[in-house]
Amino acid sequence: MAIDLTSLPRPSRDDTTVSSMVRGLVGSEILRIAAEIRELVAKGNKVCNLTVGDFNPKEFPIPDGLRDQIGAALQGGETNYPPSDGVLELRQAVQRFYERSLGLKYPLEGITIAGGARPVIYAIFRAVLDPGDVVVYPVPSWNNNHYAHMLGAKSVVVTTEASAGFMPTLAQLEPHLSSARLLCLCSPLNPTGTMLDPEALRAICQRIVEENRAREGRGQKPLILMYDHIYWVLNFGKKHVTPVELVPEMAPYTVFVDGISKAFAATGVRVGWGVGAPTIISRMRDVLGHVGAWAPKAEQVATARYLDDVPATESFLTTMRQRVDQRLEALYKGFQRMKDAGLPVDAIAPQGAIYLTVRFDVVGKDGLATNDAIRKRLLEKARFAVVPFQAFGLAEDTGWFRLSVGATSVAEIEEAMPRVEATVREILTAR
Amino acid sequence: MAIDLTSLPRPSRDDTTVSSMVRGLVGSEILRIAAEIRELVAKGNKVCNLTVGDFNPKEFPIPDGLRDQIGAALQGGETNYPPSDGVLELRQAVQRFYERSLGLKYPLEGITIAGGARPVIYAIFRAVLDPGDVVVYPVPSWNNNHYAHMLGAKSVVVTTEASAGFMPTLAQLEPHLSSARLLCLCSPLNPTGTMLDPEALRAICQRIVEENRAREGRGQKPLILMYDHIYWVLNFGKKHVTPVELVPEMAPYTVFVDGISKAFAATGVRVGWGVGAPTIISRMRDVLGHVGAWAPKAEQVATARYLDDVPATESFLTTMRQRVDQRLEALYKGFQRMKDAGLPVDAIAPQGAIYLTVRFDVVGKDGLATNDAIRKRLLEKARFAVVPFQAFGLAEDTGWFRLSVGATSVAEIEEAMPRVEATVREILTAR
Repeated sequence: MAIDLTSLPRPSRDDTTVSSMVRGLVGSEILRIAAEIRELVAKGNKVCNLTVGDFNPKEFPIPDGLRDQIGAALQGGETNYPPSDGVLELRQAVQRFYERSLGLKYPLEGITIAGGARPVIYAIFRAVLDPGDVVVYPVPSWNNNHYAHMLGAKSVVVTTEASAGFMPTLAQLEPHLSSARLLCLCSPLNPTGTMLDPEALRAICQRIVEENRAREGRGQKPLILMYDHIYWVLNFGKKHVTPVELVPEMAPYTVFVDGISKAFAATGVRVGWGVGAPTIISRMRDVLGHVGAWAPKAEQVATARYLDDVPATESFLTTMRQRVDQRLEALYKGFQRMKDAGLPVDAIAPQGAIYLTVRFDVVGKDGLATNDAIRKRLLEKARFAVVPFQAFGLAEDTGWFRLSVGATSVAEIEEAMPRVEATVREILTAR
Repeated sequence: MAIDLTSLPRPSRDDTTVSSMVRGLVGSEILRIAAEIRELVAKGNKVCNLTVGDFNPKEFPIPDGLRDQIGAALQGGETNYPPSDGVLELRQAVQRFYERSLGLKYPLEGITIAGGARPVIYAIFRAVLDPGDVVVYPVPSWNNNHYAHMLGAKSVVVTTEASAGFMPTLAQLEPHLSSARLLCLCSPLNPTGTMLDPEALRAICQRIVEENRAREGRGQKPLILMYDHIYWVLNFGKKHVTPVELVPEMAPYTVFVDGISKAFAATGVRVGWGVGAPTIISRMRDVLGHVGAWAPKAEQVATARYLDDVPATESFLTTMRQRVDQRLEALYKGFQRMKDAGLPVDAIAPQGAIYLTVRFDVVGKDGLATNDAIRKRLLEKARFAVVPFQAFGLAEDTGWFRLSVGATSVAEIEEAMPRVEATVREILTAR
């Protein structure tokens, strides 16, 4: 007879027996929305789900070559501990990949492997920030607030403008850089699907280099740039640029966040990497080693072999880009048509990642006081599930949303658009 | 032409540009030793390597059933994000496993999945400890010092005795429990291969329950027990016991660290779990979600299916135990013979895990001032690679070592023992 522990107390938000850090840790808004969607679906509703930054493997399977290499690596006994900075074969493959595709030839000491891109971000925060240190990031952006909270760092938030594709400018960042230890940029940007302009990025980088020259003279710690470009291979026409290619003097201050999760539709395979200054990468490796956030060894070996198969990866990425773009374009055109018809909606033309930024400019209409009220209405009436920019740190209820296309088909989108239009018209005509 | 970054500055230990936390983070002693071994092997030497707490997949492959299920899950498209607490199927399989094998029926809310056991430990530390909080642990033990450092917690270390199998007693812990927030126990113990006696554990648990009753009355946070039993299925005759089976009132204060890494020789597959009080497990899930230290999804699904195949797992574990025990016994008997011959060596009979505790009582002989000097001599002269207890937090140079058998064969051990004996005799006869 087992001891029955099923009636142990359940967690409550205000439980004071745990650490202050976890008590202040905010749960994911997106997961809360996901629970609402599951409930609707369980009741037999068909929902066009544009919420999760993930893929439906039926729509977006991982590359056959990658899958087969994982199987082969398992058969080959690649089942014991990987080195704490990753298997050499993969670090070398990433080195070649960056030289070939980004024109950046890093030393091996500048490359560390992790179990996805999130652990890389966490390791950068831990390697750079002491409690109370200042981290600057634009909003909307993904999860920087949570990482800052976990480190006890001081967040300085720069709210960006729709007119600039929600990308920050040097003028907006400038007042905060002299006191900052870490600046977080992301391009293509989650949640907006927009990309940094080379000139804007170059100006920011030049300012960082200048700042760090001054700090070096004063014996102060440099300002580090976390450049999250996990979506960099997913872009539709606009060229992806990096801080180091634009301003090579940025190399000692830059750490890239990257991996296979989005490029190869492999979010659940858990292979990511950090690339950058060896002085920081080596400390990230120490952090990741103790946290144990390692990529599984067979997946590491398989990713190395797959990345080195240049024709296969290029062919996969071409198709992947097309398939993501088709979905984004179907949504974008749908909203353009509604806008042309005089409805109060807007969308920013897709540039990269798997996201479209859409505005439902109906705050205040038909009792809809907040973005979240609009979200709920769209879900309930149009069975169209989207995430408000509040989930990405934006305070203002200005009607902006993230639409993520990795889990949906063009047909589902085209089926949903008339429902969305009808719901918007209903909101406008309500008394 | 790529930008050449290969001459970027290399890391140095005293680099002040990174956070204080990572600057104080001590690298693994075992990895330093591993580098020395690699050098010897590269020169053509054959080394009996008993250092790493890992498996050689040629000696210890993962179960065929597990490997095949991973392949099947990949084919089935299990390649997107798992839920942040793990796939339901695996949490249910762990629930059944604990009920069936340990007699503990936990609610699903008391089970969370992670990318190995290390992330579970890290998450417990983060969920329980605020900076400055006291964590108590015995030494020798594995890595508690590093986790305490990462949290800025105050370590209180209890040095255990060889005569007690290096296991702590209530009398040793007692002076420190009233000020502690977290107590870390591990059984079977890494590095010693010894196990806690039921009576010793029961006494400790009763004291914790009593302490927490008093704290509850005073409105203070309870003392939490981290019970790392990652090696619990690997035991050789002595029964493994848990805090909750001995003292059921411990359930709200206990979190188990566990996973497939050691039981199924799957250290590189990265599937671990935490089981315990839902109030703490839910916060650990929040931490693990942001850190992103998730087990890959296909491996989660595969582990669920494999764990539910009770005849297959039991048959595998029977063979696994035998094969580990054969190696430990070969070593143990070898050292017993040397001891019987009057040589100053000793060993503690193997009880569990993949480790043997051995003493080379030759500190001070032939210029060997420290455990590390003995280690070096054994490596260079006997090509016998072991880890001193200094790597597990023990301060005193008393000649105790961890011998790990997962990467070696019985034949290699039997070949090495005469070399070890010759080296010990050489040390004794040196002038």
